[in-house]
Amino acid sequence: MAVYTDVAADELADFLKNYEIGELLSYKGIAEGVENSNFLLHTTSGSFILTLYEKRVAVDDLPYFLSLMAHLAERGVHCPQPAKNRQGAVYSELAGRPTAIINFLEGMWPRRPTAMQCAGVGEALARMHLAGSDFPLFRKNPLSVDGWRPLFERAANRADNVRAGLSDFIAAELTHLEACWPSDLPVGVIHADLFPDNVFFLGDKLSGLIDFPFACNDMLAYDVAICLNAWCFEPDHSFNVTKARALLSAYGRERKMSKAEEDALPLLARGSALRFLLTRLVDFLNVPKGALVRPKDPLEYVRKLRFHQSVSSIRDYGVLA
Amino acid sequence: MAVYTDVAADELADFLKNYEIGELLSYKGIAEGVENSNFLLHTTSGSFILTLYEKRVAVDDLPYFLSLMAHLAERGVHCPQPAKNRQGAVYSELAGRPTAIINFLEGMWPRRPTAMQCAGVGEALARMHLAGSDFPLFRKNPLSVDGWRPLFERAANRADNVRAGLSDFIAAELTHLEACWPSDLPVGVIHADLFPDNVFFLGDKLSGLIDFPFACNDMLAYDVAICLNAWCFEPDHSFNVTKARALLSAYGRERKMSKAEEDALPLLARGSALRFLLTRLVDFLNVPKGALVRPKDPLEYVRKLRFHQSVSSIRDYGVLA
Repeated sequence: MAVYTDVAADELADFLKNYEIGELLSYKGIAEGVENSNFLLHTTSGSFILTLYEKRVAVDDLPYFLSLMAHLAERGVHCPQPAKNRQGAVYSELAGRPTAIINFLEGMWPRRPTAMQCAGVGEALARMHLAGSDFPLFRKNPLSVDGWRPLFERAANRADNVRAGLSDFIAAELTHLEACWPSDLPVGVIHADLFPDNVFFLGDKLSGLIDFPFACNDMLAYDVAICLNAWCFEPDHSFNVTKARALLSAYGRERKMSKAEEDALPLLARGSALRFLLTRLVDFLNVPKGALVRPKDPLEYVRKLRFHQSVSSIRDYGVLA
Repeated sequence: MAVYTDVAADELADFLKNYEIGELLSYKGIAEGVENSNFLLHTTSGSFILTLYEKRVAVDDLPYFLSLMAHLAERGVHCPQPAKNRQGAVYSELAGRPTAIINFLEGMWPRRPTAMQCAGVGEALARMHLAGSDFPLFRKNPLSVDGWRPLFERAANRADNVRAGLSDFIAAELTHLEACWPSDLPVGVIHADLFPDNVFFLGDKLSGLIDFPFACNDMLAYDVAICLNAWCFEPDHSFNVTKARALLSAYGRERKMSKAEEDALPLLARGSALRFLLTRLVDFLNVPKGALVRPKDPLEYVRKLRFHQSVSSIRDYGVLA
C-alpha cells in the first residue's frame, strides 16, 4: 500500500489541463502497488489511475511499458491504455516525479483463484504474447538468469539467518540453472509479473491485465512458468494440478507451445521460483525501519522451487505432452 | 493512509447482495483515514465508500453518527448518506468488523484553503448546526473539558521530552480552562473535527462535509472555534485574519451567534487548541513501532494556543463585534 507523494488539488487540476480527459471531480490515494504513488481519479469523462513513479522503474523504461500497453490495448488485449497529453506524450512530470495516467479498468483481482480463472489467465497470457509479436521496442529482462547471481551476492552471507542451509541451497540451484538455462526458445514480449493481483475479473470473466513495469523481452514460456508459480499453488503450498492443467490447456489453445518449450517448462519454473525467491530474500533482508509494507515470505519460493525440482516433465503439471 | 483489513472480492460481493446498490465492478483500498479500512467501490449504480471500523469508534457510537449523516443529508446538508441494507440497518458486519457503506462524494479537499473556501466552511457549518437542531440522538463529547485531564495524565510525565516546560504549560492552561469553561451557551450537534481534509470542494464551491465519527452534542460555538484552528492558520503558523473574518461572517449570515457566544470564542479556541494538543501529544508519545502513520506535530497546537491566549476579544479574529 502506498502513497509516498501527496499532490494538491490545484496542482493536479493544472496538470490535467494538459490532457483531454475531462475536468477533475475527485482523487483518492489508493493502497495498491508498493513502489509508486497511485491515485484513482474521477473526471467528467470517466475514471483513471494517476501514477507517480517513485523508484526502481527508471524513467528510461517508461516508454517501453507505456507504449506496450498502448500497443496491446490497440490489439484487443484488455489492459489499461495510457492517456496522451497535448504534446502526444504518455508521461510527463508532476511533483518532481515522472507521472502517467491510464484509464481505470473495472474488475477485482481474485484472492482465491479458481481453475476457471486460471484458464482465463492462460488464455489472456497467450493472446498477450501473440499481440506483442510485432511490438517494436526491446527491453532485456534484468531479472532473468544473468541477474540472479548479483541478487544472490547481496543476500548470500545473511541467507542462513532466514533458514539454515538456504545459502548453499540457492548456490547449488543457481549453478545448475546457469549451466542449463535455455537460449533457443521462442522469445517475445512477456509480462513477467502476472500474479493474481495483476489480473482483474468480473465473476469468472477476465476483465484486464495490469501493472506492466516488469514487462520485457524474454522467452515466452518463461512467462508461462511464472504463472504456474503465481496461480497454481494453494495457500498450504500444495501444487494444484487441476489449475495448472486449466492454465496450460487454455494457453495452448491460443498459442501452441513447441516440444522444446514444453520440455523446458520444469526448468523454467525452477528459474522463475529462484527469481522470486531471490528478490524476496533481498527485500526481506533489507526492510527499512518503519517500512510501510511487510516483506513477502521468501521461503514460500523455496517450497515452490523444491516442487519443480521434483518434476520430471510437463505431465507432472497435469498436461498430456 | 490505511487499509488494515483486506477483503476478498467474493466475500465483498456476497456482503453487497444484502444492499440495493448495484453489482460490484471494482474496489480499491484508499489511503485516507488513519483509524479504519476504507475502500472506494464502483458498482453498476455509482461510487461508494465502504468502511470497516477498526478501533476507537465504538460500535455503540455508529448509530449516532450514521443516523446523523442520514438526518443531515435529508435536510440538504452536503454529506454522505449511509446505505441501508435489506434489513434497514446502516451498518452490519464484514470480516469481523462493523462495516458501513456511504455514497461517494465528488470533490477535493483543499491543501491550501482560500478565504473563499473558509467562507464556504463557515456557511456549511452553520447550516449543519441548524439542520442538526432536531436530531433526536445524544452523544456526549468525550473530548471536551472533562476529557482533557485524563488525556494529560497519560502524557504529563513525558511531555517535557517533547519540549522543555510543556508539562507545566499544559497544566496551567488546563486548570484555567476547567475553572472558566462555559456551560450556558447554545448546544446542539457539532462535527468536532471539521479540518480541511474533511471538506470537499469543486473549485471554490463546497461539495461536501465528510467524516463524522467525532460528531457529538456540545456547544455550537466550540465547533466554530475548532474551525478557526483548523482553517485560519498559515503553514508558517501565522493567524490569517482575512480567512477568520470570511469564516465567521459566513457562519453569522446563516446562524447569528449570541453575544455570549462571541465573547466566549477566544476561550473556546484555547480549549479547542488544547484538545488537539493533548490528543496529538498522546499519539506522539505512543507511536507503535513500525507505525504506518507519522504522528502529527503536537507543538503546532502550542503555537495556536499561545495565539488565542493573546486574543482579548472576537475583534482580534477580524470581526466587528
